Amino acid sequence: MAKPDNIIIIGGTACGAKAAARARRLDQAANITIIEQRDNLSSATCGLPYFLSGAVVENDLVARQADYFRNIFRLNVLLNTKALSIDRAAHTVTATDLKTGSNTTLPYDKLGLATGAAPIVPNWEGKDLKGVFTLNNIPDAMAIRSYINQAKATGAVIVGAGLIGLEAAENLINMGLAVTIIEALGWPLPGLLDEEVAALVTKQLLKKDIDLIFGERVSGFRGSPEGKVTGVMVGSKTIEADIAIMALGVRPNTTLAKEAGLKIGQLGGIDVDEHLHTSDPDIYAGGDCVEVTNIVTKKKNFVPLGSTANKHGRIIGSNITGGRESFLGVAGTAAVKVFNLNVGRTGLNEKQAWEAGFDVLTALVPAFDHATYYPKSKEILVKLVAEKSTGRILGGQAVGKGDTIKRIDVLATAITFVADVQALAGTDLAYAPPYNSAMDPLHNAANVIRNKQAGYAPSLTPMEVKQKLDNGDDFILLDVRSNMEWKTGHIKGQQVKLLPLPELRNRLDELPKDAEIVTFCRTSIRAYQAQRILIGAGFTSVKFMDGSMAAWPYDL
Amino acid sequence: MAKPDNIIIIGGTACGAKAAARARRLDQAANITIIEQRDNLSSATCGLPYFLSGAVVENDLVARQADYFRNIFRLNVLLNTKALSIDRAAHTVTATDLKTGSNTTLPYDKLGLATGAAPIVPNWEGKDLKGVFTLNNIPDAMAIRSYINQAKATGAVIVGAGLIGLEAAENLINMGLAVTIIEALGWPLPGLLDEEVAALVTKQLLKKDIDLIFGERVSGFRGSPEGKVTGVMVGSKTIEADIAIMALGVRPNTTLAKEAGLKIGQLGGIDVDEHLHTSDPDIYAGGDCVEVTNIVTKKKNFVPLGSTANKHGRIIGSNITGGRESFLGVAGTAAVKVFNLNVGRTGLNEKQAWEAGFDVLTALVPAFDHATYYPKSKEILVKLVAEKSTGRILGGQAVGKGDTIKRIDVLATAITFVADVQALAGTDLAYAPPYNSAMDPLHNAANVIRNKQAGYAPSLTPMEVKQKLDNGDDFILLDVRSNMEWKTGHIKGQQVKLLPLPELRNRLDELPKDAEIVTFCRTSIRAYQAQRILIGAGFTSVKFMDGSMAAWPYDL
Repeated sequence: MAKPDNIIIIGGTACGAKAAARARRLDQAANITIIEQRDNLSSATCGLPYFLSGAVVENDLVARQADYFRNIFRLNVLLNTKALSIDRAAHTVTATDLKTGSNTTLPYDKLGLATGAAPIVPNWEGKDLKGVFTLNNIPDAMAIRSYINQAKATGAVIVGAGLIGLEAAENLINMGLAVTIIEALGWPLPGLLDEEVAALVTKQLLKKDIDLIFGERVSGFRGSPEGKVTGVMVGSKTIEADIAIMALGVRPNTTLAKEAGLKIGQLGGIDVDEHLHTSDPDIYAGGDCVEVTNIVTKKKNFVPLGSTANKHGRIIGSNITGGRESFLGVAGTAAVKVFNLNVGRTGLNEKQAWEAGFDVLTALVPAFDHATYYPKSKEILVKLVAEKSTGRILGGQAVGKGDTIKRIDVLATAITFVADVQALAGTDLAYAPPYNSAMDPLHNAANVIRNKQAGYAPSLTPMEVKQKLDNGDDFILLDVRSNMEWKTGHIKGQQVKLLPLPELRNRLDELPKDAEIVTFCRTSIRAYQAQRILIGAGFTSVKFMDGSMAAWPYDL
Repeated sequence: MAKPDNIIIIGGTACGAKAAARARRLDQAANITIIEQRDNLSSATCGLPYFLSGAVVENDLVARQADYFRNIFRLNVLLNTKALSIDRAAHTVTATDLKTGSNTTLPYDKLGLATGAAPIVPNWEGKDLKGVFTLNNIPDAMAIRSYINQAKATGAVIVGAGLIGLEAAENLINMGLAVTIIEALGWPLPGLLDEEVAALVTKQLLKKDIDLIFGERVSGFRGSPEGKVTGVMVGSKTIEADIAIMALGVRPNTTLAKEAGLKIGQLGGIDVDEHLHTSDPDIYAGGDCVEVTNIVTKKKNFVPLGSTANKHGRIIGSNITGGRESFLGVAGTAAVKVFNLNVGRTGLNEKQAWEAGFDVLTALVPAFDHATYYPKSKEILVKLVAEKSTGRILGGQAVGKGDTIKRIDVLATAITFVADVQALAGTDLAYAPPYNSAMDPLHNAANVIRNKQAGYAPSLTPMEVKQKLDNGDDFILLDVRSNMEWKTGHIKGQQVKLLPLPELRNRLDELPKDAEIVTFCRTSIRAYQAQRILIGAGFTSVKFMDGSMAAWPYDL
């Protein structure tokens, strides 16, 4: 391929800035123009929630000033400039200077689209009231901060319990506001976590005195005569609020692409192939404006993340200057700090795995993040999702005060290389007491799945057990913890029976051989041991409760 | 396979205890005997160095008391009992009660050997003096503690700068002792780290006022008339010491196996296949007494680690009761805390990769462990080792105050699944400002290797640059940092020239086009940019210094 004389990149946040820099490194001769509608490049938008509370300062939100790009990368940087249209036949982009209103038309040989995404704003009553915000860019964050100060806001409502919603909640709490989170679905991070894992997040939010309204839809905002928001309407109630933040996710910015006749995917993002080619061979697109392939389902997803945008930027920079690099897809990895809880996930959650047509096995493993005898080990809960027949790892979730994100990164890597639970159980992860136990929680989770595959360890989830209790089912829920543990709190119900593990072998005659028995303890280790003893003794229907008390999300 | 009536496991620390417990879970009927020469099972020997200083307490060093194994697992636990011989024809083990001296002979259908390893003690003069220790088990650790108290020891010499040596050093420093480390090879962790990575560990040790003697061999110990150690002889010197710890590694305990005629490997460990079968189909072996396959070289290694021992234990427990599980090998992963430095490695280091016959490319990447704008991000140094032609990842090392071990675990996983740098660069690792930057340091390292593969970024290591400076080679070592950074410290030499990156394009005529130029900055990012500018401008021999100042281990 001939080197292009003129390269234009539209959008300069993450993908665009990276694409332009990489293009320059590989091609010192081309004219490279970057068109950005705001007044800086390479802004760290993922830091915005932390900027609210001052945990992150403004200067740090711009990774590199525009002049850096001009001087070091010899880029033609057009700030406060909006691309209006692409003429694919003429190979030109027309843009307008937002300050002067004057238009220019620039030629391109190769064009990169990194137009990003914009917050979803439903057409709700009162959405234009003062004090109703989205949080998508630096001006948004500045406006929220000023409004809180000026309006002396004390009560905030956040609509949406996704990543941005939870990060914003933490930072508003740290600023001293009272916070209510409203989420239309049943639990926090509903697109990311399964219910029983999300339950730990819910507990954490409640502990921080955040009011939670799950499973109800917002219908609009109420305002004062001066046009300031005073409340958020949800169902038949109005929740008082001085400020409201809509964190309902984002939609890809595709107007330019659409009007230029580029193919748009079914999810609304620009359609690109693995080389980030759009349907026009001279136009590439990447970052938050495109759809990406999920490496597990092989289906297109819309998962806008800064990490993907950066990877895309490098690939576009390479390919736009004559290279042929590929983006193989995303695992759907995500991480979020919820106060002192580290929350991560990758691949498919259980719900998604069933929906994708897999026959699923899961393991729910409470564990400590490093050797329990080494100071400061902290508990985490890991959920592993695998394909029953093959043991292939489909996804994982981990929540806790301890180091969950390391495990998520290992799982993301394992999923990328289509690992199964046997290989994961054998993976030589780093072990020293300050960093891990001899068996990583992932090893244990993989082995639990293998035990289930082998039929050694039939199980019920805490949710299924709760359902059986509530239904009044005829079964024995066998608590094999100690008397002391029982006294500190136990699950209630006529079906619940305490029989400490050390006494089990001698008291087998207290249990009918044909009863349905579900064993549990604190973390499932003793529950599994009890299960093996009972099965070995000829009991015919013995399950254990996955995750046991450590994963029991209900009140005692 | 018929279920065995009698199972014997010899050794009950990690592998043996796990094997017995797993065997019981899978087989409630068998008689299972575990023979252990010390007075407890499942001791956490990896915690021993931390027990010295009291960071870990004695109770915690025994994961589970022997009675737990007796009651819950219905094991026949023989403590203080030493297996004397195996009669393979008769299928019996003869053991002696170390307290009473009485012998018993027990029948087995299947036997598991988990005899562990013992510290290497060269036949040095004075090795039996009081105050000369090894650190391999709980009695060792107790003896060291008592001796320090009783002898009022103030100065310790540790012989060997491996994992145990460094962990012991940290804990002795924390106890207030003056510490000298003597290592026969040239740098700390010589079997694990390459020189330039180890240099950061050296710096840390010096900062803690530890005296270091590298590249010299100990010849013996000197003692007082009362038979107490007073010094360690190294070369022509004697280093004063009230206490000395030999941390020279361990050798597999194979006497029983050897005398029973089982096959021993070339490295001295028991030879086992992937199912942990010894050369006798009724005898399994695992843990520190066996050789394991390195998954990169496919050659046998002797890498005794608690993590492997636990994995082996589970496999032996399965296979000894009729299963057929496999152990696919180790990646050679290791982690060690050296004061506040987190040190990890996996796979092959550069030296090992060359020795194994690979054509090697490496990247040395200084990076922050999470978003620099988010509080408490800390610098780390990552070294990635890959195969030049294929980009296959062969190994990695990471050192720093920040989270290095996560990256090592990701690399260990990638190596397990024979990943290449392209796939690693595209792996969807978890990103949120508290946990990572948009590009993980591993992404950057993988991309550096790809740039080198593509010929974009020829490089020299800091060691190679130092050599050229010392040789007085005719080249330009181009510091492209700012004037301010230069003033805070810079590499000296007539070949060194300061030319800040922002001025480079305008001052190209100060550099001869055909000169050999080596660019560097603080982390290599600007150095690479400068390199691309120079190459683009027609300079013919431009390299960058891998890792730049952040990896420069020499004084300024």
